[in-house]
Amino acid sequence: MNPNLKDLENDFLYHLGYSRSDDLVTLFGDVKFVVTGGSGGRMRKVAEALAEEFHLTEEEKKRIDISRTDRFSFYKVGPVLSVSHGMGVPSISILLHEIIKLLKYANTVDPIIIRIGTCGGVGIEPGTVVISNKVYNAYLKSEHVTVILGKSVVRPVELDQGTAKEIFQCGVDSGFKPLLGGTMCTDDFYEGQARMDGCICEFSQQEQMDYIKKLQQMGIVNIEMECTVLASLCQKTGVKGAIICVSLLDRMKGDQVAISTETYKNYQERPRALLIKYLRKKLQEIQHPFGSR
Amino acid sequence: MNPNLKDLENDFLYHLGYSRSDDLVTLFGDVKFVVTGGSGGRMRKVAEALAEEFHLTEEEKKRIDISRTDRFSFYKVGPVLSVSHGMGVPSISILLHEIIKLLKYANTVDPIIIRIGTCGGVGIEPGTVVISNKVYNAYLKSEHVTVILGKSVVRPVELDQGTAKEIFQCGVDSGFKPLLGGTMCTDDFYEGQARMDGCICEFSQQEQMDYIKKLQQMGIVNIEMECTVLASLCQKTGVKGAIICVSLLDRMKGDQVAISTETYKNYQERPRALLIKYLRKKLQEIQHPFGSR
Repeated sequence: MNPNLKDLENDFLYHLGYSRSDDLVTLFGDVKFVVTGGSGGRMRKVAEALAEEFHLTEEEKKRIDISRTDRFSFYKVGPVLSVSHGMGVPSISILLHEIIKLLKYANTVDPIIIRIGTCGGVGIEPGTVVISNKVYNAYLKSEHVTVILGKSVVRPVELDQGTAKEIFQCGVDSGFKPLLGGTMCTDDFYEGQARMDGCICEFSQQEQMDYIKKLQQMGIVNIEMECTVLASLCQKTGVKGAIICVSLLDRMKGDQVAISTETYKNYQERPRALLIKYLRKKLQEIQHPFGSR
Repeated sequence: MNPNLKDLENDFLYHLGYSRSDDLVTLFGDVKFVVTGGSGGRMRKVAEALAEEFHLTEEEKKRIDISRTDRFSFYKVGPVLSVSHGMGVPSISILLHEIIKLLKYANTVDPIIIRIGTCGGVGIEPGTVVISNKVYNAYLKSEHVTVILGKSVVRPVELDQGTAKEIFQCGVDSGFKPLLGGTMCTDDFYEGQARMDGCICEFSQQEQMDYIKKLQQMGIVNIEMECTVLASLCQKTGVKGAIICVSLLDRMKGDQVAISTETYKNYQERPRALLIKYLRKKLQEIQHPFGSR
């Protein structure tokens, strides 16, 4: 952890709206899991599903929304935080810096951060749930490159293999037919993911397919926009991190996310459903009261 | 514009929720300005302020929210779109790809995209409104680097100087005491902007100050997280783009955004107020009905 923090008079976690001067130990000391995903609406649904799962009373349900800004939607349901991270590495990196500080200030014990999201698949069936076991940046290197004081800094991106395997096994046991595989992170949805349907495209279909086939040969099964910085910040700060994504389309077959609203809803529910199975299992294992409520 | 688009059967602008098969010419053909900013709440306030400015009826006011997804908050008030872009280059790049396609499909004439936001200042008073005339990436180069098919692609980032000067002059005339200057874009709010108060920090205060002084020497007066890709995509597609940001703190003096809620609200209103003055002036110039309503 950053040693400078102890010298700060206070620490205002600006995008979350919480400060070290809030009673963070009381508010967040019991947190075991942080669940995060791109959209605020999806994270509200996760929180509502957890509230049902944990049999919260109507009074308790009214208090799960603890958002203080409109940068991130923020919920707490028992020992689980559900918080949106927006889209892309910079947005989730802001969230992770602030959430990791919050978890440390609150003296939480071994919290796990789990991202649930949507992704493009590489040679896999749409609807497949992927648990990442290795992450790559857009240069196809398994590392995170960030710019500090004007220079590139390269950081490792090893995800906790135990957590990935546990979630995978939980998915197998629950009939989700999940996949454990490599995930590529890009900083752009269109050109950066070799889509030909952005407002600009300067490569040919042949070049596109050569690139996507190369991903497949490397063991990359899906593409999203946040995994490298999640893996890097978690590894660097000693927090376990995991990523569960559902594939919306097979990029070997097209660029457009052209699925019906119904199919989209069905797919989106899968990472959430697997996540909730996993959380229940883990909380029961540690005999946490919410595991049996 | 990307020539592949004409071969597409349809084009679903996934994150906006609109398709080319919608009647985009009827829905958006009259658009003259796209105003965009990070937070959904701020863009709702812009839309509400425009609705007052343009004397919309109560019935018209009920129809300004045209959002179809919770990725971006999306409003239309007469010839002005107000839409959120989230935080960081990847998020705004998704929005810009889809908005620029929408503007083209709708046959809009010479639309201007204006980002309004908050930023850190470099040696300037908190509360100063900055109109960007040049943008730099975190390597202190005036270019945008994006990764396509696994390789770096470097693109120019020239903002339309005429629009920047017009907004600046409008700010001077309206008593905003604005500044015209260079803006740096980073992909990280903490380490990437040389803050020492993230969950990780591996440089000294001396190194931090040397870096921030170097920015100042280069004519960089503020730091935010979206300008390079906005400048790059606008230049590449021939759409005029501009950036108006208010500085929340002076990075020569600290890292924390520790201002009162009241001061924050007051600062946040400044880019919006200047923007509205500018829009009114421009719409009057072209004798647009909304300029005189």
